[in-house]
Amino acid sequence: MADSRSGIELDVQMLQRRIRVALGEEPGDLVLRGAQVVNVFTESVESANVVIVDGWIAGVGPYDWQASQTVSLTGCAILPGLCDAHVHLESTLLLPSMLAPVIVPHGTTMVIADPHEIANVAGKAGIDLILQDSEGLPLDVFLMAPSCVPASQWESSGATLKAQDIAELLEHPRILGLAEMMNFPGVLSADPEILEKVAQPTRMGLPVDGHAPALVGQPLQAYVAAGIRSDHESTTVEEALAKAALGMLVQVRDGSMARNLETLLPLLVDDRLGDWCLATDDIQVDDLVERGHIDELLRRVVSGGVPVARAVRHVCLVPARHYGLSDRGAVAPGYRADLFVVKDLVDFASHLVIKDGAVVARDGQYIMPSEVNAASAASAKPSAPVASAMRSAPVGSAVRTVPVGSAVRTMRGHEQHPQSESVHENSVCLGKLTEQAFELRLTNGASSPADGTSCPVIGVIPDEILTSNETCTVNVHPSTKRWQFDPKQDICLIACIERHHGTGRVGLGLVRGLGLRKAGAIGSSVAHDAHNLVVAGTTTGDMLACALALAEMGGGFVVAAEGSIVARLPLPVAGLISTHDHKTVLEELKEVTQAARNLGCLLPTPFGTLSFLCLSVIPELRITDQGLLDVTRQELISL
Amino acid sequence: MADSRSGIELDVQMLQRRIRVALGEEPGDLVLRGAQVVNVFTESVESANVVIVDGWIAGVGPYDWQASQTVSLTGCAILPGLCDAHVHLESTLLLPSMLAPVIVPHGTTMVIADPHEIANVAGKAGIDLILQDSEGLPLDVFLMAPSCVPASQWESSGATLKAQDIAELLEHPRILGLAEMMNFPGVLSADPEILEKVAQPTRMGLPVDGHAPALVGQPLQAYVAAGIRSDHESTTVEEALAKAALGMLVQVRDGSMARNLETLLPLLVDDRLGDWCLATDDIQVDDLVERGHIDELLRRVVSGGVPVARAVRHVCLVPARHYGLSDRGAVAPGYRADLFVVKDLVDFASHLVIKDGAVVARDGQYIMPSEVNAASAASAKPSAPVASAMRSAPVGSAVRTVPVGSAVRTMRGHEQHPQSESVHENSVCLGKLTEQAFELRLTNGASSPADGTSCPVIGVIPDEILTSNETCTVNVHPSTKRWQFDPKQDICLIACIERHHGTGRVGLGLVRGLGLRKAGAIGSSVAHDAHNLVVAGTTTGDMLACALALAEMGGGFVVAAEGSIVARLPLPVAGLISTHDHKTVLEELKEVTQAARNLGCLLPTPFGTLSFLCLSVIPELRITDQGLLDVTRQELISL
Repeated sequence: MADSRSGIELDVQMLQRRIRVALGEEPGDLVLRGAQVVNVFTESVESANVVIVDGWIAGVGPYDWQASQTVSLTGCAILPGLCDAHVHLESTLLLPSMLAPVIVPHGTTMVIADPHEIANVAGKAGIDLILQDSEGLPLDVFLMAPSCVPASQWESSGATLKAQDIAELLEHPRILGLAEMMNFPGVLSADPEILEKVAQPTRMGLPVDGHAPALVGQPLQAYVAAGIRSDHESTTVEEALAKAALGMLVQVRDGSMARNLETLLPLLVDDRLGDWCLATDDIQVDDLVERGHIDELLRRVVSGGVPVARAVRHVCLVPARHYGLSDRGAVAPGYRADLFVVKDLVDFASHLVIKDGAVVARDGQYIMPSEVNAASAASAKPSAPVASAMRSAPVGSAVRTVPVGSAVRTMRGHEQHPQSESVHENSVCLGKLTEQAFELRLTNGASSPADGTSCPVIGVIPDEILTSNETCTVNVHPSTKRWQFDPKQDICLIACIERHHGTGRVGLGLVRGLGLRKAGAIGSSVAHDAHNLVVAGTTTGDMLACALALAEMGGGFVVAAEGSIVARLPLPVAGLISTHDHKTVLEELKEVTQAARNLGCLLPTPFGTLSFLCLSVIPELRITDQGLLDVTRQELISL
Repeated sequence: MADSRSGIELDVQMLQRRIRVALGEEPGDLVLRGAQVVNVFTESVESANVVIVDGWIAGVGPYDWQASQTVSLTGCAILPGLCDAHVHLESTLLLPSMLAPVIVPHGTTMVIADPHEIANVAGKAGIDLILQDSEGLPLDVFLMAPSCVPASQWESSGATLKAQDIAELLEHPRILGLAEMMNFPGVLSADPEILEKVAQPTRMGLPVDGHAPALVGQPLQAYVAAGIRSDHESTTVEEALAKAALGMLVQVRDGSMARNLETLLPLLVDDRLGDWCLATDDIQVDDLVERGHIDELLRRVVSGGVPVARAVRHVCLVPARHYGLSDRGAVAPGYRADLFVVKDLVDFASHLVIKDGAVVARDGQYIMPSEVNAASAASAKPSAPVASAMRSAPVGSAVRTVPVGSAVRTMRGHEQHPQSESVHENSVCLGKLTEQAFELRLTNGASSPADGTSCPVIGVIPDEILTSNETCTVNVHPSTKRWQFDPKQDICLIACIERHHGTGRVGLGLVRGLGLRKAGAIGSSVAHDAHNLVVAGTTTGDMLACALALAEMGGGFVVAAEGSIVARLPLPVAGLISTHDHKTVLEELKEVTQAARNLGCLLPTPFGTLSFLCLSVIPELRITDQGLLDVTRQELISL
């Protein structure tokens, strides 16, 4: 009975029950008594009972509703389930079914996800995997159709999504519109293939998400004129104001890699943005476990001075409406019973999370109600596209892996993860690779007095995805002109190694700010957005060791020191995602992070930072498999 | 290239031009220079230029855009085109093509219309007529699918719309959702046919409009739980707050029949309703000409203390978003160039109205740009359903009529209305009717001392659609028990005469407050919502004369005095709408109104008030062809 677009399943019998429950003529399924309810419409908080039937709210008010289950919530407050309005789930390193136990207890019941990481590796089959793994979870996983696969002409991805593919994706009921149009140069140059991607959802009345870092002035006018209506890339007050003034929904981003809330908070307090909402964009499992999810951002917004009901409106109702989800984002009759019950409206400590009327988390612990289990069992059969997108480590690998279907089943069944010898295709396909591939000759640089050479270097900016275009004087061998590591400088080699088609292509450059000071290297198959291999290191031998280990593992994070692998985190699903639960991934992540720290890298998330150094659509300098890219000038730089 | 739902026509070439114009690489079609622009997103006002191409806004800002036409607007302000969020166009007495010249100069570029008047007479053919007549106008006429045809079991309409009909209507790109669900008793009793009508748009993610006068408490919870998300019936602050708190969009109504703005204005000033917008519901042509349209309400809202940019947001952006019109309601890049240029932000005097980028009104005068004419010419061919729904006066009638297609063509072509002898079916079909049908015997009343009888009387409340259930002691003939007119009392007969199927059924009652004090009667074929004939009078002979004249005219307004017809306004389109332009209709309306005043009726809109006395879904007492109805108790009252 669900329309293909709204996804709302509704029959007359449900409406009849809901009406009778609201009128008090029939008992509901669940009544929540005595809590303070946040009203996102009038931006107020009032004591009220909430009665639920068939997973929907039938009434919110002072009435003495009866139900088969009653929960007293005196002293607590009820919010709508929280929404992460823009997130790349792959960056958590978890499958959606493994992520739900992490974020649902934090009150998140809805995410708007752009699956462009897995789409860059495996195309539509990768998107299918996300859709299928997220079926029946107590977390609504909505997707946006990835607009930029590959992200730009500079990236060599494993798959390409053309306008026709976007049109097909938009037919899916859980795909709500077009995901962040990162290729703003393509929009501004009026590239017809790119504009056709924008035009399709616009004609259908569906939203088009933006991604326009530092875009202002007439270029921003043109970008918005194309029909792009949101942006999560504002890093300054001026930029956010400029975007809001043109009607963009400012999605204030605060995740693992880029944290803009503190900067933009004054605009929220002064209510100068009109609509806004919150998003993490990219957030790793360790940050989710340590800091929380949208609840943590909400807490900071409210403690920063935004009235609580207004803050909740923006976190819940505003994104729901923006994305056309008319049945979500409010605690009101006729809305889905997706609720976040908190102990108070200051700390927002999680007391209960209710999804579709069932308690799915209690006191911060994920619990699996039988209804959700039942729904999962029916949807847990891995399909052909899932199997093909699902590529784990080869037989005999030391790394423990489980196939995705099995992982979903066992997690939902509360069983131990079984060891598995199942073989899937390894998504890492390298060409011939030797240590020489990592030898960097600096032939274009100007010699400096101390026998160094002046050359462009990618500058890492902590807590930002943006990089700086720096000119540094670096150490070169006088005759070979080969770059040589200088422990007095925080500069090391960085390589992007094509890994989808076995071309053997390697782009090489220098990066400042990773902190590597010993003989070693760190490597990853998570390398936005094409997800080739990215390896940064001080010696060519360690870099080669990383690349080869990643190829053997089917992708992941890896650290080499003095010629051998010292830590690894396998990510066998497209080289992006683990098949394990968050506890296992956290342990592995801790190991690789510690190993990176042992090499001197003190950044908060070494592999997170590393993974963005290839992203060709964010200024200023990036490394791609084609070489060092000046994003601003849209040209490769010869060293 | 338009999707069937969004109605947005967009090809890549348009986007390319728009981007290049925004960037200043190409000239636009029109640039508006130097005005203050109301920003509905940030709720601010700033000086900016606006550049337009292909009927869409390409840029809004301080840039020096070039265009083939430049208009200097220094000293003026630019608003988005205004929206009437809920209106029954039939109540204006004009066809949409005749209405546009009246309201477009007042800045209205968009109406959300419920065509349930014509649907009650002619069903889907009537809706087709409205759709066809409004094609290509410089006024966006969106419809909601009438939910209650007939309005209730108590009304005998000319046509019935079942759930299956609603489903078909919802496929039309200009039909945006379900129109006001007036049958709240049906909703509250969980009537499956009614709930299926509500479920259909909800499943499609489309809005369902409400109509719930005085509904509060648990019944309101149940009504909202059904998925009904707006209401225009709030007449008190408490009622509006109760509805807003449950997430209903409060459509503050102020039209000819019910004027609620003054009462609700404090809520707007104090920003207590969350979202709200403005609507006229029912407004007659004379009020439109004398007072204005939404511009007049906006002026009152702003002079009452609502900040101007916030007021404009609510009048424009809020309804556009509510009804899923993502390309309207803002002066911003990527929005349609539907603009209201005013001389200042206090009086909102109309300087220019721009629709789809073309100037269509100047200094309050409607002008027809050639583009709009061209579009009209192509769409002005009357189709079979239009012809069948279009029924004018019989041959030989003294009344000048033109067929609708011709009216559309001539109006759009600036020609004189030709005389026309074309014959359409007369929509008024009476059974055998004699003076005796209007003789009221009061057999149930208690005798009072002065030989009067105490009985229930419909009480007219000035400026309200609500009526009161009054008990009055009235004059009866001692032996026949027939009611007799008493000039000392403001009480007269009222009859509802079935006119669609020739049944001869007449419901009879008494009404207080019309003011008729002489021998005479007033009659109308506009009688919400079934649009049977309603006649009120002091003598049975005058009442019969009115009924017979209406039958001969094919419907309209008519006044009889001392046995003969003294004034008439023919409404040959379904007995509801004139085929003439507003000037002719105004003259005729003035004549019938003056004739009613001559009988003693001093109400502001005698025929407006009369037309609502049959409406079976608004408390408290109504007259239907089945008799006197107690709406609150949902039962017929025997006199």
